[in-house]
Amino acid sequence: MSSNQHHLNKEQMLTRVQEELERPPFHAFLAPRTHSADPASGEIVIELPWQDAFSLSAAEKYYHGGIIASLIDLAGHAVIATHTGGVAPTIDLRIDYLRPAPGGSLFAHAVALSVGRTLGRADIRIIAQDKTVAVGRGAFRVLG
Amino acid sequence: MSSNQHHLNKEQMLTRVQEELERPPFHAFLAPRTHSADPASGEIVIELPWQDAFSLSAAEKYYHGGIIASLIDLAGHAVIATHTGGVAPTIDLRIDYLRPAPGGSLFAHAVALSVGRTLGRADIRIIAQDKTVAVGRGAFRVLG
Amino acid sequence: MSSNQHHLNKEQMLTRVQEELERPPFHAFLAPRTHSADPASGEIVIELPWQDAFSLSAAEKYYHGGIIASLIDLAGHAVIATHTGGVAPTIDLRIDYLRPAPGGSLFAHAVALSVGRTLGRADIRIIAQDKTVAVGRGAFRVLG
Amino acid sequence: MSSNQHHLNKEQMLTRVQEELERPPFHAFLAPRTHSADPASGEIVIELPWQDAFSLSAAEKYYHGGIIASLIDLAGHAVIATHTGGVAPTIDLRIDYLRPAPGGSLFAHAVALSVGRTLGRADIRIIAQDKTVAVGRGAFRVLG
Repeated sequence: MSSNQHHLNKEQMLTRVQEELERPPFHAFLAPRTHSADPASGEIVIELPWQDAFSLSAAEKYYHGGIIASLIDLAGHAVIATHTGGVAPTIDLRIDYLRPAPGGSLFAHAVALSVGRTLGRADIRIIAQDKTVAVGRGAFRVLG
Repeated sequence: MSSNQHHLNKEQMLTRVQEELERPPFHAFLAPRTHSADPASGEIVIELPWQDAFSLSAAEKYYHGGIIASLIDLAGHAVIATHTGGVAPTIDLRIDYLRPAPGGSLFAHAVALSVGRTLGRADIRIIAQDKTVAVGRGAFRVLG
Repeated sequence: MSSNQHHLNKEQMLTRVQEELERPPFHAFLAPRTHSADPASGEIVIELPWQDAFSLSAAEKYYHGGIIASLIDLAGHAVIATHTGGVAPTIDLRIDYLRPAPGGSLFAHAVALSVGRTLGRADIRIIAQDKTVAVGRGAFRVLG
Repeated sequence: MSSNQHHLNKEQMLTRVQEELERPPFHAFLAPRTHSADPASGEIVIELPWQDAFSLSAAEKYYHGGIIASLIDLAGHAVIATHTGGVAPTIDLRIDYLRPAPGGSLFAHAVALSVGRTLGRADIRIIAQDKTVAVGRGAFRVLG
């Protein structure tokens, strides 16, 4: 994929993703979990278990768009940071909400589209109950 | 601005924004506040006071990108819903992170770019310590 | 994929895409061609043969970003219009330029992410010399 | 605006924009013109006169979305390149089509939102017959 991709094995990828997930205090609220990583494709999967505090409505269990945006942001960051070994602040994001996202875990599938010396791009797909509920795409700075 | 804009006075706009902010359970965590509304331009301003739980880093007080994305989503939604009098689920969003957003209140300035029968678009500018730290733009469904 | 997808066979899909490509006078300049269509996945592929008038630079044969944006727009429109049988004006687009796009044909691979009663979303991948040079994602109105 | 902004006067800005407009062979087809430049705000305005070859439909004079996307791309590029004195390849763009764009000149009003050492962001507003018909926002590489 990339000239500066670190060739990590599965255990190393999972460790790297987990480090990214544990660092920010905001993640203590969100509580995302490393689910899986595939060294061949570079895809990582992050699980976000449901909490009632994530809800859009008191009456029904559907995710607020801000929680989905947060998950897309952190998953995109994590996949680029795993590739480069450094940090990867978000430059910009596009988020498309395809359908309401019902309660239960969300799974963010993130892949790097390209990673260069100064810039990475990532695609993120959010799955709820086996359906794609949202997709995200972003540009990230590559820093040492 | 719009053929189906409700012509609200300032008090009515503020009440309408406040209703939007109080509804979602996720907002009990975020705790956004109605700051101001301008019937002439249609601009609304929403304040988000700092909490340590919003932080990107344990060492320094900077906002996590997911909090900024959440504020852009809810402010865009609120400005379109205030125009139309109904709900306005987010179709898609673009978020540009221009610079790190230091702790202290964020102020989201939201305006409608266009509002039609089925579709509205909004521009959102996020201000921290008098600087624009992020900008957002989104498309929203217009529902009765 | 969609509740209002028209179930077209391969010949019908190709005919529908070709109609979309022939209509606009701007396409007489661009000269895109229907390349292939897959009824199972709903993917269509549109080819854009190189012209020197598409160039970014007089010295080297690389595509101007505006030509790539135009191809993404028309391919996204075509895949949604093929699904719905009507027209599908573009609401918004995101375009990511991943690497320079060298002369030779471009191939736009377009799929619908979702198609509803009023709104469709499409993903478009632009291939040059077997590499993905750009990706696009857009929202489109669904009209009768 | 920026730490590496070149402080150009009006004549220098106009000369710099004109250089950017003349370079690409694709612009010989589009024929955009430097309209104005404001050293105080950094805003540049580029005019695109109507041609029948830009049309979406043989029956009516409305701009094809690809022409609008091309104008947004070149205007964003030009405003960042004018700031930095170098070239500024497009990283990504978002384009929102707000209403049909009738024949007659388009005017692209472009400003830099931020310009840093490696990255610039621009906002572009497309005006037709005194109405905003589309808006664009993009990220651009800053190169020497």
